Order: sequence, then structure tokens, then C-alpha cells
Amino acid sequence: MKILWINPVGTDRYDRAIGALLKREAREETEVDVVSLPQDRPQHLEYHAYEAIVTPDIVRLVYAFRKRYDAFVIGCFYDVALREAREVSAEAVVLAPCQSSLVHAAHLGNSFSVLVGRQKWIPKMQENVRSYGCADRLASMRALELGVQDFQRDPEATARRMIEEGKKAVEEDGAEVLVLGCTIEFGFYREMQERLGVPVIDAVLSPFKLAESLGETARRFGWGPSRTGGSQAPPEEEAARWGLACEPPIGSFLGFAEIPHED
Amino acid sequence: MKILWINPVGTDRYDRAIGALLKREAREETEVDVVSLPQDRPQHLEYHAYEAIVTPDIVRLVYAFRKRYDAFVIGCFYDVALREAREVSAEAVVLAPCQSSLVHAAHLGNSFSVLVGRQKWIPKMQENVRSYGCADRLASMRALELGVQDFQRDPEATARRMIEEGKKAVEEDGAEVLVLGCTIEFGFYREMQERLGVPVIDAVLSPFKLAESLGETARRFGWGPSRTGGSQAPPEEEAARWGLACEPPIGSFLGFAEIPHED
Amino acid sequence: MKILWINPVGTDRYDRAIGALLKREAREETEVDVVSLPQDRPQHLEYHAYEAIVTPDIVRLVYAFRKRYDAFVIGCFYDVALREAREVSAEAVVLAPCQSSLVHAAHLGNSFSVLVGRQKWIPKMQENVRSYGCADRLASMRALELGVQDFQRDPEATARRMIEEGKKAVEEDGAEVLVLGCTIEFGFYREMQERLGVPVIDAVLSPFKLAESLGETARRFGWGPSRTGGSQAPPEEEAARWGLACEPPIGSFLGFAEIPHED
Amino acid sequence: MKILWINPVGTDRYDRAIGALLKREAREETEVDVVSLPQDRPQHLEYHAYEAIVTPDIVRLVYAFRKRYDAFVIGCFYDVALREAREVSAEAVVLAPCQSSLVHAAHLGNSFSVLVGRQKWIPKMQENVRSYGCADRLASMRALELGVQDFQRDPEATARRMIEEGKKAVEEDGAEVLVLGCTIEFGFYREMQERLGVPVIDAVLSPFKLAESLGETARRFGWGPSRTGGSQAPPEEEAARWGLACEPPIGSFLGFAEIPHED
Amino acid sequence: MKILWINPVGTDRYDRAIGALLKREAREETEVDVVSLPQDRPQHLEYHAYEAIVTPDIVRLVYAFRKRYDAFVIGCFYDVALREAREVSAEAVVLAPCQSSLVHAAHLGNSFSVLVGRQKWIPKMQENVRSYGCADRLASMRALELGVQDFQRDPEATARRMIEEGKKAVEEDGAEVLVLGCTIEFGFYREMQERLGVPVIDAVLSPFKLAESLGETARRFGWGPSRTGGSQAPPEEEAARWGLACEPPIGSFLGFAEIPHED
Amino acid sequence: MKILWINPVGTDRYDRAIGALLKREAREETEVDVVSLPQDRPQHLEYHAYEAIVTPDIVRLVYAFRKRYDAFVIGCFYDVALREAREVSAEAVVLAPCQSSLVHAAHLGNSFSVLVGRQKWIPKMQENVRSYGCADRLASMRALELGVQDFQRDPEATARRMIEEGKKAVEEDGAEVLVLGCTIEFGFYREMQERLGVPVIDAVLSPFKLAESLGETARRFGWGPSRTGGSQAPPEEEAARWGLACEPPIGSFLGFAEIPHED
Repeated sequence: MKILWINPVGTDRYDRAIGALLKREAREETEVDVVSLPQDRPQHLEYHAYEAIVTPDIVRLVYAFRKRYDAFVIGCFYDVALREAREVSAEAVVLAPCQSSLVHAAHLGNSFSVLVGRQKWIPKMQENVRSYGCADRLASMRALELGVQDFQRDPEATARRMIEEGKKAVEEDGAEVLVLGCTIEFGFYREMQERLGVPVIDAVLSPFKLAESLGETARRFGWGPSRTGGSQAPPEEEAARWGLACEPPIGSFLGFAEIPHED
Repeated sequence: MKILWINPVGTDRYDRAIGALLKREAREETEVDVVSLPQDRPQHLEYHAYEAIVTPDIVRLVYAFRKRYDAFVIGCFYDVALREAREVSAEAVVLAPCQSSLVHAAHLGNSFSVLVGRQKWIPKMQENVRSYGCADRLASMRALELGVQDFQRDPEATARRMIEEGKKAVEEDGAEVLVLGCTIEFGFYREMQERLGVPVIDAVLSPFKLAESLGETARRFGWGPSRTGGSQAPPEEEAARWGLACEPPIGSFLGFAEIPHED
Repeated sequence: MKILWINPVGTDRYDRAIGALLKREAREETEVDVVSLPQDRPQHLEYHAYEAIVTPDIVRLVYAFRKRYDAFVIGCFYDVALREAREVSAEAVVLAPCQSSLVHAAHLGNSFSVLVGRQKWIPKMQENVRSYGCADRLASMRALELGVQDFQRDPEATARRMIEEGKKAVEEDGAEVLVLGCTIEFGFYREMQERLGVPVIDAVLSPFKLAESLGETARRFGWGPSRTGGSQAPPEEEAARWGLACEPPIGSFLGFAEIPHED
Repeated sequence: MKILWINPVGTDRYDRAIGALLKREAREETEVDVVSLPQDRPQHLEYHAYEAIVTPDIVRLVYAFRKRYDAFVIGCFYDVALREAREVSAEAVVLAPCQSSLVHAAHLGNSFSVLVGRQKWIPKMQENVRSYGCADRLASMRALELGVQDFQRDPEATARRMIEEGKKAVEEDGAEVLVLGCTIEFGFYREMQERLGVPVIDAVLSPFKLAESLGETARRFGWGPSRTGGSQAPPEEEAARWGLACEPPIGSFLGFAEIPHED
Repeated sequence: MKILWINPVGTDRYDRAIGALLKREAREETEVDVVSLPQDRPQHLEYHAYEAIVTPDIVRLVYAFRKRYDAFVIGCFYDVALREAREVSAEAVVLAPCQSSLVHAAHLGNSFSVLVGRQKWIPKMQENVRSYGCADRLASMRALELGVQDFQRDPEATARRMIEEGKKAVEEDGAEVLVLGCTIEFGFYREMQERLGVPVIDAVLSPFKLAESLGETARRFGWGPSRTGGSQAPPEEEAARWGLACEPPIGSFLGFAEIPHED
Repeated sequence: MKILWINPVGTDRYDRAIGALLKREAREETEVDVVSLPQDRPQHLEYHAYEAIVTPDIVRLVYAFRKRYDAFVIGCFYDVALREAREVSAEAVVLAPCQSSLVHAAHLGNSFSVLVGRQKWIPKMQENVRSYGCADRLASMRALELGVQDFQRDPEATARRMIEEGKKAVEEDGAEVLVLGCTIEFGFYREMQERLGVPVIDAVLSPFKLAESLGETARRFGWGPSRTGGSQAPPEEEAARWGLACEPPIGSFLGFAEIPHED
């Protein structure tokens, strides 16, 4: 089982920490590599224009490595470029945090709230939740008023903030499950869970563990992506001519062996 | 990882075959037991009245074994008693074929069709699909006009029928993924897949493999069912007084060790 | 016109009071009997596991008496076992409080709120409201934080609580109609109505009066349940073999003649 | 119990026949009068412009007689002016065929088809069905390609046509219940029902019998229309000044005593 | 390009002011006339019964002038008689403020709030928003608690009230765009916009400018209303016989030349 | 009024023809320029991966020219990068063919069908229609089984194919309006319209004429895009640093003056 975790940003700042987290929680048979984008790319994707910029990067990475991995995870809760990447992933499955988290949430409770960084993120994330069919179960989206780059700066302050807002989601909005609406909110779910008494879905662990499962069923049962209808892949030659088959846009690549056990 | 597969019918006719299938496809660390109900129970659940009869059995089984398994699978595509069983499963997750199959389908294509046995099944299954938020992606439900007890009688005829109807689902209804809408439709997905060129989700394997994954995340991350809001469990003493804590209704119990490797 | 009111709980505590209420409000040509379940059954259905336990009881009662009544009412606002009971009711109609109350509400105002006992009840009741097609008209569900067994204990306190919460539903949530979300909230609607100036639908009277009407149209026009598609009934012999045709699970049976005129 | 049946057209052609039908099927305590509009009004409402013309007539009739009836039925399957008439009906309930028929259909089966006269009618009727929350249960709308004025011309031909199209609705579209989508389709439901084996809801009898029931609960329990929020009625004086309180637009008025027993 | 603006009320109080506003904002090639209804008609449409009264007036006006204008605007945010008027407009397009405003809102932001006069208006307007497909984008409807006839009485007070409520819509409800939910709220959008920093859609200007555009495409490309299916128009002769072709109900008619440049 | 039409493909093959069409149909005060992408970009966007590749190009073009145009049109019926481009368009509005066509369709009939090139396009286009709130009005999507590059090759054959499929949409699916689901289907609407008798919305003219209108209201009334909530724009400096403010990706630029009057 080989998984590629894509941090779709122009910084390797989170690669080692996320890599170590994945390594610690991986099944024995799983190998996970972590890649991030060239340094001139946006370092966070809080604006849709930044998503636009990294969209071809994500698709090119998946296309380039489609035969070397069983599963890909696009590490941003906007689920950027998910439809596009799935189209070119050959037999590999492609996952993304929002869709995965909703799977976990749907199995654990009647309703969920998402704790996002900023109000800014809410409309697109709500539309994603709606398009995944989970709008009826969404108790609320609550903004922590922290940016992507703030979450790991002062973890204690972040934890306090998340617990405070999570408590409101449970008590005022009726959420039975909490979902952390950004991959950089990693490292907090367990304390929140203990304090709040409800499951807290981590946006890194959720798609990663589901990727292990869907990667396994893809390989074992042939349950890779459909290639008919809207899922039909572009012809290889044409795709190559029009820029899909270029040098993959890698800023940093951290192979499984290089990932530290603790970070 | 311990999983209990529940065949919620009063016959052990399918226990060994399903057990062997699960054993073959299990991860190394998984143990799965298979249980079916006492012989006076309905042998299939094609009618809702039969579902009614086995509903307390399912709940009592889950309650009785809630501390001995990480995950339960209710082996009927009606997802009988899912809400009720989840309420009393303590920290174990409870899965069911329809909900699981829709997770697989949503990751593999834009739309799916379900091949059910009879027209009779369609309204309730459609309502389930709707309540899981997947109505927009449902291309069609097609009835094979075979009952639960027919599927394994003449496997070649069944396969022909399924391929024929699956072909129409793909070509006429625009399904990108096929879902087999009965657990007793096991054993056919691979041939269908090869013949039709689209992923075919098996209603036994789908919830089983997802149960391995959700059972693991339940244990590893504490992502068991929420116990707040509508997911609050009944008080133990009251539940015992009112019939939840009785002798579990077991017709046949097949422990992992007893399951044959091939059947 | 003969109606069977089913109190699907293992106590006859409410049988006489509900019976007297129905008798007082019945049309001249109506006879209504009241039945409750054996004493070892749950005394309230606040937990879904308890619903599970009484599910076959409800279905067996309806099946046993299907030819002796024109209409059945399942007396619990969860509308427990409604689909299942309808399948085996032959030519009799089966009603339940939530579905009926929404009929009344839809004819009297643009929106409604439901006053339930506990938060616990809300997710399933919301899903019912949604499946009945009334989600757009639901202004709110408000929990009184009273259990089923509390409503009739201190009626004055209950009335105060209901008026208080009903007022908020009207003034803050914009409800034009109030619905009492538990059959044991009987006896309060009239005072609430006078105090709040909006129609308040009682969960006993609503399904009972609608049952008189639908029972009449069933008999008069032949508008009994469809028996095609998903409404097809199980074959008699098979159903008998598999436990549907057993001795009906009766704890207490109060015939129309025995019901007191006032209670 | 006093009910006013409004034939919102400028002809009394159907008044006696509908009156006789209602008289035959009424409860003993029911008195029903039948009114139709002045002769210069449209004789059918197949076009929305015709609905527009009779809209104030309907509202003025209901306003004029609001204290003399317990219930009104607007006798057109477009449910013309229903919102507007309800606003001024004081304590009387107002019903209309489409909304009523969906109540009957929802209690008798999982899905229904509506047999309308012409394709022309379908978009508005579909929007009504949607706004009543029943779109998910609508199996199909099928046009008989007969106009309002054709239905009673050659009843045998009409019956043949309705049975033919109803059969397709059941067999091809999966309808479990049929609804006749025009009040002038009266007189056919019983034969259809016998021939097709599914309940067939008549658009005259359905709102009439429900009006008896809702009229009774309005009077008995005070369950008249809400008068808050969007249901607030206009101030009497202002309404009078602006044309609501004029002479009611009556073409023909058939009092209960004058209605023949057979027609 | 000729447009008829219909003030569907029995007063010409707003004709000159609205006319002047339209004249000032019209394209060079646009001529707009303003018509209002006879003096015995309702002076505002806050109640649905008043809408009923003017419904045939609107339809008759559109029918009478269908060949003399390229576009009609029905000047009431309830979008009264829109479906009915469209049926008889021949090749002219018919617009109404709510539908138009939602077009502007959908192009300018993810969500919008509507500032209505009274709570009374909300249910019908919400249903309109829903039927236009925009319910998911509706952040809130907020009532100013001002009636139609209050808006222009003390413009400074009105402006303060609108800014206050608009601010809450933006800050508390998350509206990205504001819509003024009454045509008589004209004259305020610009100040609100400057103060609140979000686009504020005026219910007069929005349908007027869209009418210029749709009137142009109707004439230039032949994109007038469909006349098939539910949009089929009534036969001329029949319509004439049944009251559509009467003298148009004009209270005041203000031709383009007569409209003052400032008012 | 200055509009930039963006052909988001790596060929200028259609620039002159579309430019000439726009010039012919423009208002007098409109200037429209046409731009297409560098030659190494995909020449059509039938695959989502190709959309991914041109996504940053579209956003960069809009950002680069945001102060030089009143309105932008993204000339692809997938409405590629619409959310992203709107975020950075400053005070200019951004339009796209699918959203615009649905505005025209909603004003002209109750339902519409979209004639797309290939089955492949349908799932994403359906999701767009759904997210624009028009799913209930979508009669069908029908594939012509022609690719983008086929439409203009043999116009007579294309016209025949479109008329044939459009006829089915009207007669079998009940479409009252037809929408051409690709900008390269230009040049056919008028003949279709004459032959089929229903309005046929052209995917070039629809967004262009609506852009003139929305561009005018943006400038005249300040109705430019909201910049709060999810519509907040990225900080200029950050955006520049991360690749938004690069040299705009222009393959060919056709200024208004250079556009031929006939092509």
C-alpha cells in the first residue's frame, strides 16, 4: 500500500510534522510519502485564487505518480482539484479531507459542526458539504478566526480557542460530532475529544486512514475509479501535448524512509 | 480488530460462505465472527414485517457483544435497525451495506445504480439513499426480479441476469458505478466488473472492509459513536429491566477459527 | 368505524386517560379500543433501542387485528414501525402522530414548531419531518427537557413550561402553528392555544381524528393501502411460519364499552 | 358542519352532479352547498390567465361566507387562490384538491402518479406538488390529452383512456397510488380502482372528506387557521375599502336542500 | 425598447418618483411608461387578499399592451401574477423584482439577505425564493417593521432602520449582498451601500435594468417567452369571451414624455 | 462599457468568429476584446484535467485586467474558474455561459434542456445546474455526441444533429426552452428556434448580453462583487508574491477595433 500525501502549498513547513503523524498512525503495510509544491506557490490556500494557482500542480502530481501509488490525499479541506485529479489517477483512488471527514462523521452521529479558520472559508466549504449530500446533517460551521498559518504558532492558545468554539457547537448548535476544517488543525483532536466528550475528526487522519482502506479495496477488488461517463480520462497523447505530462511540480519530497518517527 | 458480521435471518445457510469470503479478504490483524438468528426467525427480509421481527434481535446482539467487538456489520442492504443498534454499541462502530456502498461509490464515480432483487425493495432503499444524502447521484435502481433465496441457486443464471441489467444501468441510465443491493448477491462482482468495465461494489465486502477501517480509527483515535444528542445511549439499568439485556438471540455462531478457508 | 389505538409501551398507565379523551372526542359512529403492551416491555420509547424492542409487537398487533379495525393509530410521536405496520394492515389504514400532525399544521399555517420532551428526540424526529416532506416548513424543534413520564406528573408545571417554550417558538422562531411532539403531552393544547393565540396540535387528537376520516374513506371508497410496489404484503403462510401470526402481544386491552366517560 | 364547495368557473354545468356526489358521500351531520361563478367568467381554468380572472372571486366568496361555513373547498386541482383564500377565512379551514389528494396518497403508498388532462397543466401542478413537499414521492404526471370539458362528454371513452394511462403509471413509473388531477375527472375512480388494483384518489371526494374532518377539528378543538406571521388577516375596514367586501360573485348557488339525491 | 412599469396598486402616489428614477437610469434607447391601477384598488399589497384583487388587473394590462412593449415589470416584490402574466405576454418578456434581484445577488456574492417590511411578508417571499432555486443562498429575511406606506414618509428614519438591520444581516447572518424586499424601498440603496460596504440591490432598478436587457434579447434574438408546455397561451377568442380582453384597468398612465426628469 | 471575452483555450481558432458575432450584437456603447491563451494550452476543455491547466490562466487574466474592464466572460460552458476569478475581479463582474443561460431560461419557460457535446460533460454540468439552484427545472441534458472541435466543421450536419436532439428534448422530455451547452455551438440558435418553435439560448450571446447589463449596473449603481465573507479578495502584496500578478497568459489578443464586422 503506497500513499502520496500532497501538501498543496509552496512550503515544506508542515511536511515533516504531518509525515511523522502519518507514519505513527499508518498500518504496518502502508508506506506514505509527503510532497509539497515549489517555493513560489502560495503558502496557504485561504483564497480561491490561490487554489486556482495550485490546481494544475495537484493534477500534474497525481498524473505523474498515478502508477506509483494506490491512493493520493490532497491535503486541503477545500478538497481542491478533487474532481480534476480523480480524472487522471488511473487505478489509484484520490481522497480529500472534507469528503473523508463527512464519512467518519456520518458513521458516528446524527449531526456535525465544522470548525474552520475564517468566515471567508465558509461559503465554499458549505457548498462542498452540500454537494457531498451532507447539508441536512451540518449543525454549523464556526470560524475560529485563525488563519492557516496561526494554528501551530501557539498550540495552547489554539487548543483553548478550538475547545471554546467546539463547546458552543455541541451545546448551542446541537453537533454530535466535530470536524476540524483544516489540515493544519492537526494535533488537537485528542485533547478536544477528552474535554468535550464527542468525537473530533482530524482532517489529516481522516483522509489518510480512509485512503489506506480505499487504496486496499482498489488494489484487492479492482475498486479503482470508474472510467466511464464523466469519469472518462483524457487520451494520453493529447494530455501530454497539452501540458499534463510535464515535470511534476515538486518543492519538497519526503520519502517514507526519511520521515522521522517523532517530530 | 474484532468484527461481528450479523446475518439477521433465521438460517445459517449463508454463514460459512460469507465467513469464508470475509476471512479471505480480511487484513491480517482482523478477526471476524459470523452470527445468524434462531431458526424461527424469517429466512430473508424482503418484507418490512420481517425486518420488524428481527429488529430487536439485531439490537440485542449488538448490545450483548458491544464490549467484545470493535465493529459490527448488519448484513442486510435495507440497513435494518442501524440507528437503533448504533445507540447501544458503546464504543464500537456499527456499519451496514447500503451506507458503506455509497461511500465506495462516491469515491469512484459521479453516479451509481443499485441492482436490487425485486421492485418491492426499491421504495425503502430509495428512501435510505435519500437519507444518506446520495439521491442526486442515484442513476437508477433496477430490479433483477430475483428473490434473496434465488441468487445463489443457479449462479450462472444469476450472473447473466446481473450483467444484463448492469449493462443497461451503465448504458441507458448513465451509472458510472454499480452497487449490488443485497448481501446475498455476493460472489458476482468481479466477473461483472470485468465484463462491464465499471467498478461493482459488493454488499458484503464493502461494509466489511470499511468496518475494518472504522473499527481501527475507533480504537486508535477514540472515534467511536457520539453519545450526545440523539446518539445518547439508554441507561444500563433501565435497558436491562426493559428487555435489552436478555440472552442474545443466536441461531448459529461461527467463530473466526471455525471459518473454513475456502467454501 | 372501528379504530385501535396502540400505546406501544409496557404499561397501561395512560390507557384509561387517553381512552376517555378519545371517547369524548369521537364521532358518534366511532368505536375505539385501546391496547398497550405486556408489562415487560419498555414503559417509554425515548431511546431507539426501546423502539426496536416494541417494533415487532406493533406489527404483530396490527397483523392480528387487521380485519377487525378500519384504522390503527400507533401512539408514539416517533411514528415507530409505521412502514412495517402498514405492510400488514390489509385494508385498514395505519396512522401515527407525527405524520398526522403535519397534515393539520400544513392546513393551518405556513410554518410550525414541534415541542419535544428532550434534545435526544430531535434528530430522529427531524429526519421523520424531512421524510414527510415538511422540512421547509419546520420553524424549530424545541426541547422542554421533560421526559415522557414527567408530562402528567405535575400538569401545572408542565403547562407553564410548554407555554414558555411555545411562546419562544412563535416569537423567536416564527412558528405559526405549534405541534406537541409526544402523545403523553395530551391535555394541554387548549390552554396553550388560548394563551398563545396560535393553533396547537395535540398528538393524540390529531391522528385519532384523521384516522376516523381515513378509516371512513378506506371503507367507503376502497381507499385502503396500496398493495403493489413497496407496499406489497408478505405471503400469509410464510409470514405465519416466520413469527408474524403469533399470539398478539397484549398487556392491557380496554374495549370501547369499558372506557370511562371522564377520567 | 357546513361546507361550501366552490366550483371556480363561470358555469353551473357541474354543480348538480358534484353536489349530488357530495350529498351521497357526506356524513350525516354535514351540509354542503355548491356555488359557481357568474356566467361571464371562464368555464374552465386550463390557462393561468383564467385562474387570474377568478382569483378575486374565490377570495371574495370565502370572505363573504367566512362566518357561515366551517370549511371551504376550492374545486380546482390547480389549488387556485388557496393561500389568498386562507388569509380571509376567519376560523374556517380552506382546502383544495391537490393538497388533499397528496394527504390521502401519502397514507396509502410510497409513491403516486397524477393523471392530468393536458401537458399544459403539468409545470404548475408539479410546482404545487413540490411546494407541498411531495416531489420525492411523485412517480409521474401523465397527460390524458383531454381537456376539462371533455371528461364527462363520453364517459366510456374517458374511462378507457384513464385506465390505459393509469396502468402505465403503475407498471412503468412505479406508482403505488393514482391521483386524478382534475375535479371534473369525478365518477371514474371506482372502476379504475377495480381494474388496476391500486387506490385511485378522486379529486372531488378527497378534499371534501378531508374538509369534513378538518372542519370538525376546527370547530371542536379550535384548530382553525393561524392568524400570526404570514397568515395574519387584513384589517376588516381596509379590506372593505379596497374591494374585498363587495357583493359575492355568485353565478349559481345550490343549497344543500336543493341538491338532488341522484343526478 | 419599450418597457411598461406596472405599479399594481390603486394609487398613483409613487408613479412620478419611480418614473423619474427609471428615466434617469434608462439607456438612451429605452422608453418606459408607468401605469397604476384604478383608485378603488388596494393601495398596497401587504395582504395576499389584496394581491388576489389586483391579479386579473395585472394580467389584463399585460394582455392589452402585449404588442406595444418589449418588456413588462410587475412592480411588487411578491412577484404577483408573474406566471399568469407571462402566459399572455405574447413575445414580450415579463419581469418582477424578487426574481430579478436574485439574479443580481447570485452574480455578486455567495449569499444574500432580504430586508422586508413586515414579518407578514416573509413566508410567501421565502417560498418564492425557494421556487426560484435560491433557498441555499438566502442568509436571512429581516423585517424592518415598516409597512409599504411608511418607507417614504420619513426617509431619514427609514434609512437609519435599513442600515441598522442591514448591518445585522451582514455581521450576524453572513449576508454578502443585501436585497431590498419592496419596490417602495427605492432611493436608499446607495447610502446603505456606502455605509455597509456590500452591494445593495434596489427592487426598482434591478428588474428595470434586467428588463432592458431581456427586452433587447427578446427582440434581437427572438428570445421571447416559450409558448409550449406550461407556457402555452390561451386561444385569443376564448380568452376574449372570458374576460381577458376587456378595457385595461388603468388608474393613471404616465407616458415617457410626461415623466419629469427629477422628482 | 468594456468587456473582455476570454476563450480559455490554447488556440485563437474561434477568436475572430466569436469576436465578430459579439461586435454585431453589441450595444453601441460596448467595446469587447477577445483573448485566448498561449498555444501550449489545451485547445478544448472536454476533460477536467484541461480545465485544471487553464484555471490559473483565467484567474491571472482577470486579475491583470480587473481595472480595465467592467465585465469579463469566461467562454466555456463548464463555467471554469468562475468562483476563483470573481474573487480577484475588483469591481468588475465576471460571467459564465451556464449561469447566464439559466437566467435567460428561467425568464422564458418552466423548464429547459441542455444540448451538450458528449456524455462526458454531463455530470459536472448537472452539478453546476444544481448548484445554481435550477435542478428542478432541468428537463434533460442530451449529448449530441460531437466534440468541441466538431461543431463548426460541418455546420449543416451539426445543425441537423442539434435540431434532431432538440426536438426530442421538447417532445419527449418536456423542455420549454433549449440551451446550447457549449460556446462553440454558436451560430445555430436561430435556425433551431425557427424549426423547433421554442427559444434556443446561445451560450455566447447569453453571457455577453447579460455582461453588458451587469457591467452597466456595476458601474452605474456600484453593484460590483461583494468583498465580504467568502468573496473577500486576497491581499494584493501576498497575491503578487504567490504568483497571481505575473505576466498575463495571452496567446492572442483581439482588440475591439481589430475585430472584423463579418467573419
